[in-house]
Amino acid sequence: MTPPPTVEMWFEFASSYSYLAVMRAEAAARAAGVVLRWRPFLLGPVFLSLGWNDSPFNIYPPKGRYMWRDMARLAEKYGIPFHLPSQFPRNGLRAARVACVGQDEAWIAPFARAVMQANFGEDRDIGERAVIADILTRLDLPADSLLDAADSEAAKIALRRQTEQATTRGLFGAPSIIVGDELFWGNDRLEDALAWATGRR
Amino acid sequence: MTPPPTVEMWFEFASSYSYLAVMRAEAAARAAGVVLRWRPFLLGPVFLSLGWNDSPFNIYPPKGRYMWRDMARLAEKYGIPFHLPSQFPRNGLRAARVACVGQDEAWIAPFARAVMQANFGEDRDIGERAVIADILTRLDLPADSLLDAADSEAAKIALRRQTEQATTRGLFGAPSIIVGDELFWGNDRLEDALAWATGRR
Repeated sequence: MTPPPTVEMWFEFASSYSYLAVMRAEAAARAAGVVLRWRPFLLGPVFLSLGWNDSPFNIYPPKGRYMWRDMARLAEKYGIPFHLPSQFPRNGLRAARVACVGQDEAWIAPFARAVMQANFGEDRDIGERAVIADILTRLDLPADSLLDAADSEAAKIALRRQTEQATTRGLFGAPSIIVGDELFWGNDRLEDALAWATGRR
Repeated sequence: MTPPPTVEMWFEFASSYSYLAVMRAEAAARAAGVVLRWRPFLLGPVFLSLGWNDSPFNIYPPKGRYMWRDMARLAEKYGIPFHLPSQFPRNGLRAARVACVGQDEAWIAPFARAVMQANFGEDRDIGERAVIADILTRLDLPADSLLDAADSEAAKIALRRQTEQATTRGLFGAPSIIVGDELFWGNDRLEDALAWATGRR
């Protein structure tokens, strides 16, 4: 018996296009018969390695203006809630550490969707501990112990290593979907990545 | 009787993803019942206005490595010939001036495809007058008179104005597809742009 095809979903909670991909990934992977592995990471260090000290959507205003319009159109097309965030990018560090703690747990997918939707669908500050605690509690998860675990040295190191691995594997943005050695960048490559994983190229 | 829906295809002969969109645009527009208007322009001045003095795929090596792999995969998916160019970006100025002269003529679509395929499918130097002359001749077009027209002051001004208009209209890359006031960026937005034009959103 061969193992089922697997893809890795590399995402960042502050990333706009990661929102669209994270909201769609689980259902799309299930429909394709593909196992999804969640890989939260931080874009900040990746962008710094490219010479950007902010989101390229802020550094290059025409790209930013386009991205927000494109986001609104795509969210409508997918039926995903969208609310222009009053702050961009938000600080996704705490959420990413929690996600790193739980990235192989059953709750990672609903947690990732809830944080993403808080940021891009409800204009909530996901950098605040109380917002993440509220999200965890609504998912019937032990908020305090998970947040404490996310504050531990081990969780900090785990996220740092995962972010270093992102750069090593050639990532330069998010979302990125990795299938074996093949890198697919962007929400609009999710279907191509799943097709690659199942050999329907 | 209402006029048929129309989209503008803004492209640059040196742009890799423009190759994929230019090769697909006419058939896709015809299938959608949409009139296609071709708008050649130069990315160089647009990139300069963003602070880039070269293709971002050269300035940011991880983006460049990914783009070439993505191009190869997508060309195979679409059944479009692909050969890694030995020079990138090539000088698309002369081809763009010829295309600007003929942008509302029946030969613009086959001319655009032939130049694009020479660059990205056959590794030919589209900056050379002889290459463009050969392409025009194979299309049964009067190569010398079109190349002379492209060298005229009027043609230079027309391309310069069109490139200025690109920036004014918010373009920051190619291909870009414009539907009324809606901007769609990238080969992977071609279908969305056509759907927008026909009201099937």
